[in-house]
Amino acid sequence: MQKIQLNPVGTMSLLSQLEVDLLNQSANGELHKLFRNCCLAVLYSGAEIDNSESIFAPHRDFNINLIIRERGVKIELLNSPDIAFVDGELIQGVHEHLFSALRDLLYTGAKYSAQSLNFPSDSNFITHSVFDMLRHAQAITCSAELNMVVCWGGHSIGSTEYKYTKEVGYQLGLRRLNICTGCGPGAMKGPMKGATIGHAKQRYKTGRYLGLTEPGIIAAEPPNAIVNELVIMPDIEKRLEAFIRLSHAIVIFPGGAGTAEELLYLIGIMLDEKNSQQILPIILTGPEQSKAYFESIDQFIGATLGSEAQKLYEIVVGEPSKVAKIIKSKQQQIRDYRKQTGDSYDFNWSLKIAPQFQTPFDPTHENMAQLNLHFDQPKTELAAALRQAFSGIVAGNVKADSVKQIERNGPFQLNGEPKLMAMMDNLLESFVEQQRMKLPGSNYVPCYQISK
Amino acid sequence: MQKIQLNPVGTMSLLSQLEVDLLNQSANGELHKLFRNCCLAVLYSGAEIDNSESIFAPHRDFNINLIIRERGVKIELLNSPDIAFVDGELIQGVHEHLFSALRDLLYTGAKYSAQSLNFPSDSNFITHSVFDMLRHAQAITCSAELNMVVCWGGHSIGSTEYKYTKEVGYQLGLRRLNICTGCGPGAMKGPMKGATIGHAKQRYKTGRYLGLTEPGIIAAEPPNAIVNELVIMPDIEKRLEAFIRLSHAIVIFPGGAGTAEELLYLIGIMLDEKNSQQILPIILTGPEQSKAYFESIDQFIGATLGSEAQKLYEIVVGEPSKVAKIIKSKQQQIRDYRKQTGDSYDFNWSLKIAPQFQTPFDPTHENMAQLNLHFDQPKTELAAALRQAFSGIVAGNVKADSVKQIERNGPFQLNGEPKLMAMMDNLLESFVEQQRMKLPGSNYVPCYQISK
Amino acid sequence: MQKIQLNPVGTMSLLSQLEVDLLNQSANGELHKLFRNCCLAVLYSGAEIDNSESIFAPHRDFNINLIIRERGVKIELLNSPDIAFVDGELIQGVHEHLFSALRDLLYTGAKYSAQSLNFPSDSNFITHSVFDMLRHAQAITCSAELNMVVCWGGHSIGSTEYKYTKEVGYQLGLRRLNICTGCGPGAMKGPMKGATIGHAKQRYKTGRYLGLTEPGIIAAEPPNAIVNELVIMPDIEKRLEAFIRLSHAIVIFPGGAGTAEELLYLIGIMLDEKNSQQILPIILTGPEQSKAYFESIDQFIGATLGSEAQKLYEIVVGEPSKVAKIIKSKQQQIRDYRKQTGDSYDFNWSLKIAPQFQTPFDPTHENMAQLNLHFDQPKTELAAALRQAFSGIVAGNVKADSVKQIERNGPFQLNGEPKLMAMMDNLLESFVEQQRMKLPGSNYVPCYQISK
Amino acid sequence: MQKIQLNPVGTMSLLSQLEVDLLNQSANGELHKLFRNCCLAVLYSGAEIDNSESIFAPHRDFNINLIIRERGVKIELLNSPDIAFVDGELIQGVHEHLFSALRDLLYTGAKYSAQSLNFPSDSNFITHSVFDMLRHAQAITCSAELNMVVCWGGHSIGSTEYKYTKEVGYQLGLRRLNICTGCGPGAMKGPMKGATIGHAKQRYKTGRYLGLTEPGIIAAEPPNAIVNELVIMPDIEKRLEAFIRLSHAIVIFPGGAGTAEELLYLIGIMLDEKNSQQILPIILTGPEQSKAYFESIDQFIGATLGSEAQKLYEIVVGEPSKVAKIIKSKQQQIRDYRKQTGDSYDFNWSLKIAPQFQTPFDPTHENMAQLNLHFDQPKTELAAALRQAFSGIVAGNVKADSVKQIERNGPFQLNGEPKLMAMMDNLLESFVEQQRMKLPGSNYVPCYQISK
Repeated sequence: MQKIQLNPVGTMSLLSQLEVDLLNQSANGELHKLFRNCCLAVLYSGAEIDNSESIFAPHRDFNINLIIRERGVKIELLNSPDIAFVDGELIQGVHEHLFSALRDLLYTGAKYSAQSLNFPSDSNFITHSVFDMLRHAQAITCSAELNMVVCWGGHSIGSTEYKYTKEVGYQLGLRRLNICTGCGPGAMKGPMKGATIGHAKQRYKTGRYLGLTEPGIIAAEPPNAIVNELVIMPDIEKRLEAFIRLSHAIVIFPGGAGTAEELLYLIGIMLDEKNSQQILPIILTGPEQSKAYFESIDQFIGATLGSEAQKLYEIVVGEPSKVAKIIKSKQQQIRDYRKQTGDSYDFNWSLKIAPQFQTPFDPTHENMAQLNLHFDQPKTELAAALRQAFSGIVAGNVKADSVKQIERNGPFQLNGEPKLMAMMDNLLESFVEQQRMKLPGSNYVPCYQISK
Repeated sequence: MQKIQLNPVGTMSLLSQLEVDLLNQSANGELHKLFRNCCLAVLYSGAEIDNSESIFAPHRDFNINLIIRERGVKIELLNSPDIAFVDGELIQGVHEHLFSALRDLLYTGAKYSAQSLNFPSDSNFITHSVFDMLRHAQAITCSAELNMVVCWGGHSIGSTEYKYTKEVGYQLGLRRLNICTGCGPGAMKGPMKGATIGHAKQRYKTGRYLGLTEPGIIAAEPPNAIVNELVIMPDIEKRLEAFIRLSHAIVIFPGGAGTAEELLYLIGIMLDEKNSQQILPIILTGPEQSKAYFESIDQFIGATLGSEAQKLYEIVVGEPSKVAKIIKSKQQQIRDYRKQTGDSYDFNWSLKIAPQFQTPFDPTHENMAQLNLHFDQPKTELAAALRQAFSGIVAGNVKADSVKQIERNGPFQLNGEPKLMAMMDNLLESFVEQQRMKLPGSNYVPCYQISK
Repeated sequence: MQKIQLNPVGTMSLLSQLEVDLLNQSANGELHKLFRNCCLAVLYSGAEIDNSESIFAPHRDFNINLIIRERGVKIELLNSPDIAFVDGELIQGVHEHLFSALRDLLYTGAKYSAQSLNFPSDSNFITHSVFDMLRHAQAITCSAELNMVVCWGGHSIGSTEYKYTKEVGYQLGLRRLNICTGCGPGAMKGPMKGATIGHAKQRYKTGRYLGLTEPGIIAAEPPNAIVNELVIMPDIEKRLEAFIRLSHAIVIFPGGAGTAEELLYLIGIMLDEKNSQQILPIILTGPEQSKAYFESIDQFIGATLGSEAQKLYEIVVGEPSKVAKIIKSKQQQIRDYRKQTGDSYDFNWSLKIAPQFQTPFDPTHENMAQLNLHFDQPKTELAAALRQAFSGIVAGNVKADSVKQIERNGPFQLNGEPKLMAMMDNLLESFVEQQRMKLPGSNYVPCYQISK
Repeated sequence: MQKIQLNPVGTMSLLSQLEVDLLNQSANGELHKLFRNCCLAVLYSGAEIDNSESIFAPHRDFNINLIIRERGVKIELLNSPDIAFVDGELIQGVHEHLFSALRDLLYTGAKYSAQSLNFPSDSNFITHSVFDMLRHAQAITCSAELNMVVCWGGHSIGSTEYKYTKEVGYQLGLRRLNICTGCGPGAMKGPMKGATIGHAKQRYKTGRYLGLTEPGIIAAEPPNAIVNELVIMPDIEKRLEAFIRLSHAIVIFPGGAGTAEELLYLIGIMLDEKNSQQILPIILTGPEQSKAYFESIDQFIGATLGSEAQKLYEIVVGEPSKVAKIIKSKQQQIRDYRKQTGDSYDFNWSLKIAPQFQTPFDPTHENMAQLNLHFDQPKTELAAALRQAFSGIVAGNVKADSVKQIERNGPFQLNGEPKLMAMMDNLLESFVEQQRMKLPGSNYVPCYQISK
C-alpha cells in the first residue's frame, strides 16, 4: 500500500494542540468523507474531468488520515493517484491545495462550530465569515491595486470559445490584472492561462490565479493547473459572495446553467437600489460565433428583469482587448469610490447583499417545486428565484447528492407562470443543444422538467 | 489640540466589520483607560523611566480614539507627547507598537470574551491562548533556527553591569542568536543593544528583538528603542509562559524582585519531574563585581529548593563569550530532542507547566498574607509560593493598582517559617542595598514587611 | 511622428559619461543600422515570423536614437510598431529586451574595441569574452542548481512536433529545470511555454527562459513571448559556446539546417578526447512521427562521424517524461564532477573547445566552396567542416547579408567526397521535403548546390 | 600553522579565468605586501587602533594567498588574528571586507593597468574610474532617495564629542538618512552607530554605513564594526572625489589635520564658479565644548579664503536635530536640481573638480617644501595648496611610507608667506593641544616644521 506523509504548509503549519484536537475530531467525524473526496479531486488538479465518478471510481482504496504530533498536524495519503506525482514526489501546488482543503473544510468548520453560540447568524456574520475565511486563506492582500477580475463561464465550451477566453486573459494579463474563477476547466482555465503569458511579458511576478470552489463542485471541476490560490467556500452562496466582494470587474463568458446562475445572482444584487452607486464593470463576452448565445441571454434578462437589468452589463463580441480596456479604464473610478466611502480596496464591504442571496438554498425536489417563478414580484425577488432554479439545475447536473436524489425521484419539477416557464425552457434547451451542460462527448440527460 | 490619525499596520489592517464593532465596544468600555495608558507608555519608547507617574502626570490631556471606517479602524491620538515624533511624523516603530497594543489589549480581549463559553478554561486552553496571541502577533516564525535567547534581569542596574549585558548580547548576536526580554531599560535593553552590533557584523539582517510585557508593567518599563516586536500578554503568568515556551536558552542577569520571581518560576517548573528530559540552558551571569550577588542567590536557592535546583543552572562570572558558547553548543541537542518528541522548534509544547504557575496570582494584602511559606511541602510548591511572594513585591513596587493599595493599607505582610523568612529578608535587603529595586537616584521605600 | 523615450533598465542604468560617449559614437556609427534592426525585431517579440523582410518592409520610417544626459542614456523610438504597446505603454519585457540590445550590441562592442590592444585574441580571451558578456547580462547566477537545459530545434515545425516540445518543457518544468533556447518560435518556444506550466504547478517562481541569439538571426527569429532574459552574442560561434558552457543538459528537437549545425558543433566538441570525462546529457527527441527524422540524422552521424559519435547522445521517441527523468538523474553526477574538478556550477570552464569551433566562420561563396568535406581527416575536424557547411546554409536561408550575396552570385557551391556529398544532399533534401527550412506556407528555394 | 580558506563573495565570486590569472599575477607581485597589510587591517575591523604598528608587529607570520581554481579564486589566510573569529568561524562582515580588498586593490588595479593604453588619463577618465570602482563595489544604488550624508571628523576625539557624533547620527538615522565616513573610529564611527538606532526605530532595514578608505590609511583606521560596505579607493584624491560625488550633504565634526584637509578640499571645489549653482549642505558641528574649535577653523577659513568661503558652510553648535533637519529640508531642492540638469541622483556628475584637486599629491619632502603657500593667488588655488599641506601632514602622522621618510629625513618643511604660516601654525598647535592628532594616551611628535 502506497503511503505518503505531507508536512503542513501555509497557515496550517502553525496550530495549537487544541486546534489539532478539534481538527482530528472533525477529520474522523462526518466530514471525513467530504474531506477525502475533495482531496482526491485536488490530486487530479490539472486533469480535464467533469464527472465525479471518473475520479472516484478507480480510487476506492484511496484514503487520507491526519497524523497528530506535538507540534501540529501532517496529512497522510494512502493509495493516491499517480497523476499528482513527479518522480515519486507530490507536485508542490497540489501539496498546497491539500492543505487549503484541510484549512477550509476541517479547520474553519471546527472553528465556526466551536464559536457558533457567540455570533449571531445574521447577514453581518455571514459576511464576516466570508471575509474571515478569505483572510485566513491569505486571499485578501492589502495590495490596493484593485486588479481582481472575476471570470465566469462554462466548464464545457468549444475550442473557439476556449481560445477566446485565453485571448481575453492575455489582454487582462498585459494590463497587470489578476484572475479569479471557479477553478475548473474551460472558461475557468482559459483566462488564467492567457493571463500568465500577459503577466510574463510585463514581468508581473505576483500574478494571482485564484480559484474559488465549494465542496459539492470541486470533484466535478478540480482546480486547473494554473490556480495558485485555492479557497473552498462552505456553500454556493458564500462562494458567490466571495466572488463579488473580491472582484473589481466581472467578465462572463458563454456557459450553461452555472453561468446563468452566476449572472442572475449578480444582477439580482446590482438591481438593489442600495447598490445603485456601486461601480462594478460587468462584461458579457465571447467570440463572433457566440453572438447569438449572448443575444438569447440578453433577451431573457430583458424579458424577465427589464431594461434596467440590461443596463448593468455590456456585451462585447469578438474584441478581447476592448474587454480589458473597459476594465482598466474603470479602475480609477473604483478607487475613488472606495476611498470616498472609506471602503476597503480589496473587499467590497459596502455592497448590499439581501438575505435571499445569502441564505443557502437546498435544491430538494420540494424546494425546487416551490420556487416562486412569477413576474408579479420585485425584480430582485424574481432574480433570486431564477438564480435558485438554475442553482438547483447545476446541482442536479454535477453534485453527487442531487444526482442521487434525481436517480431516485426523477427530475426536478419547475412550476410557474407559463410565459416565464417557456422562456426558461427555451434558454435551457439552447444550452443543451449547444452542449453547454456537459463536456463534449458525454450525453446530457436533463435533471429537470418544466411544467407546461 | 494636536490630533493625529494613524493607519493600521500588521494584522490590524485586515479586520471585518464585526471585529471592528467589537473593538469599538472594547475601546469605549472599561478597557479604554488601560489602552490609553499602554499607548502613552509606548509613545515613550526608548526613554529611560521606571515610574508610571513621570509618564502620566504631564499628559493628563492625552487621549486616544478609534476611528471606525467601512474598511477597518484607525487610531487617533490627541495631544500626544513630542518625544515620539520626528519633524511632525510619528516614528515608525512607535506606530507599529501602538497597533500591537490595539491588537493585544482590545482585539484579543474582545475575541476571547466572545469565545469564552466554548473553550474550557483549563491548562490546555491557557497554553492555547498564549500560543494564539503569539501567533497572531506573528512572533512564532517557523524559522527552525532555535535561536531565541530570553534575557532576564533588572531594569535598574549599574553601568558596569549594563555594559556587561551589552557584551553578552554582542556575543549572542555574533552567533546569530536573537533576544527576547521584558522590554524595558537596563538588563532588558543591554543584550538587545549588544546583539544589534553582533548581528550587524555577521550581516544577520533578520535579527529579532522581541519585547514581552504586560499591561501593569508597560508604563513603568516602556519598550526600549531596539525592540522590533512588541507583545503585551494579558497577565504576568501568561507572559512568563510565553517567555519559556518561546525560549531556547535563558540568561539571567543581576536584578531585583522581578528577576527573582522569574528565576523561581523557572526553577519551579524545571523541577517538575515531567520536565526532567527537557533541554534548556539556564545561565546566571554578570561581571566580576556581581559575583557576590549570584552567590547569595545561589545560596538562597540551595537553602530553599535544594541542590537539585542548583543543578538546573550554571553561574558564569565575567565571561560573556562563554555564556554565548554554552548556548550555541546546546542548539543541536535541543533540535534533536524536539525532533524526536515531534515538538515544534519554535514553541515548546511538551514543557509541563503546573496550575500553580499558570493561574494568575492577584497580589492583594490578603493573598500575600496567606502564602504558604514553609519548608515542609514539595519543592515545586515552595518555588510557586516564593514566586508569588516576589511577584507581589514587584507589583507593590511598580504597578499602579498595587501601589495604591499599599498607600491605603500599608505594606504587604509576609508570614512564614522564620528561617525561610530570614532568608527572604536577607535577600531583599541586599537588593535594596544594591539599589536594584529602583532606578538610581530614586529612594526605595519597601512595599512589604516580613513578619519576624 | 510617434516618439517615445525609454528610461534605462538593468546594467544600462548605471553608466559613466565616458561610457555614454563611447555608446553614442557606436550608435551613430556603422553599428547604428544593426542596432536599429535588432530593436525593430525585439519590438516584434512574440510575433510568429521568420522573414526579416516582413518585419523590416512596413517600418522604413522606424528609427532609434540615444538621448544623452548627464546621468546616462535613454532610448528614443520613432514610429515604432503598435504590436509592442498596450494602451500606449511599451510592454515591460520588450522594454527590457531593447536595453539588452543596447548592452550587447553597442556597450559591449565599444568596450571590447576600446580594450582590444591589451588582451590577446586567443582561445582564452574568446572564452573570457563569452563569460564576460553573460555575466554582464546577469545570465550567470551563482545559483548552484545545475538546472539549465538548452533546447535546440527548428523554428519551423509542425503542430504535433510543437505540442511535443511543449510536453517536454512541461516535464522539465515540473522538475524545476530552466530552459535556454535560440529564442525564436517553434522548438525554441514550445519548451519554454511548457516549462511555465510545470514551474507554475511546482510554485517555482524563479523560472528562467533564456534566449541566446545573434545579430544576424534575431530579425528572422524575434524573441518569443516567454523569454525573460535576452542575450545577443556577437557571432554564431560565441552563441554556440555560450549555449554549451551554460548548459547542464542539451535536448535536440527536430529541426533543419540550424539544428544540424548545432548538433555537429556539439558532437565535434564532445569527440575531443580532452572532453572524454565531461558529463553532459544530450537527448535527441520528438514525437512518434519524427522517428524517421531521427533515424536519418543518426544514420548520417554514424556514417560520417562513427559509432563513437553516436554514443554521445540518446534518442528518445515519444516519451517526454523520460527525457526529463534522464536529465534530472544526471544532475548529481554533474555536481560531483564540477566539485571534484573545481569547476563552476554555472559555467563549464573545463570543457575544451578547439579553435575551429571558436573562430567565426564567414560564409562567403569562397569559404563555402573551400570547405574540406572529405572522410580522411580526424572526426573532430570533419565535424567542424560539416558544422560550417550547415552554418553557411542557415545564413543563406535567413541572414540578410548572405541572402543578398546569393541573390547576386547564385547558390553556394559545396564540393567534397562524392559519398559524403550524397549523404548531405539526402539529409538536406529530407529537411526541405519536411518543410523544416521555412515556416509553413512559404516556399523554399535552396541556397546551396551540392556538386555531383 | 593556522590556515583558513574563504570562498569568494560579491562580485569576486564571478570571475573569468583570464581575470583570475591577472589577479594572481598582481597578488604575487609588488601589490602583495599592500594587499596583505590591508587584509590584516580588515581583520581588525571594530578594534580601536590608530597605529599601524600595533596591528602589524604582533603578526609578522600572518600571510595571505590566492588559491586558483577552475571556477575562480579563494583567499587563504595563514596565522590570522583571533579577533576576527567567532568559535573558529570568520565573522561574515570581515569575510566580505576581505573580498572588498581583493576587489579594490588587486582586481581593479589589474583591470586598469590592462586598459591603461586605451583611456586618456584626463579628468574625465579619473571621474570615470571613481564611478566605475564605486559601481563595481555596488556602492551606487539607483535608489533615488538622495540620502547619503558624508560625515568627516577626527578619529581621535573626546568622549563628549564622540557622544555628540552619535547623537547627530541618531537624528540622521531617524530621518532615514544613510552615513558615509572614512571608516575608522571616533567621528567616523559615532554617526554610524547613532544612525543604526535611528534606523532601527524607523524600521529602516536598508541602512547603509559606507566606509571609504585608501590603502595608506586603512591600517591606521581599520573599518569600524558598523561599516557594511567597504571601498578602498586607490589614492586620497579619488577617495575625496568619491566622497563628494556620492554625498547629498556633508557634516564636519571636530578633527585634526585630516579633517582640515577634507574641509579645504571641499571649499576649494565649491568656490569654483562652475559649481556656484550646486546645492550641497555643509555643516560644521560639535557639542558646546567644541565651539572654540569651530571658531578658530572659521577664522582660519575667513582669513585665508575669505567670507565667500565662509558662506559655503553653516556652523551648528550643540543641536544634533538641527543638523539633521537642515539636511532633510534640502533634499527636495537637490532632487529638483538634479532632475533639471539631468544629473544622476546617486552620483554628482555635474560637480566640477579642477585638476589640482584630482591629481594625486605625493607628500615627499621636496613637494611639501615647494607648496605655494601665499595669499596672492586665486582662492581655489590657495585652497588646493593648503589642502595638500594638510594632506602631507596626515601622511606624516599615519602613513607607513611617509613616517619612514620622516624618520630618515626629519620633519617636512613648510615655507610660505609668514602671515599665512603663522595662521597654520596656530591652527596645528591647537590640534596638538586638543589631542586631535593621535588617540588619547599616545604622545604626538609633529611631523612638520613651519618655517618662521
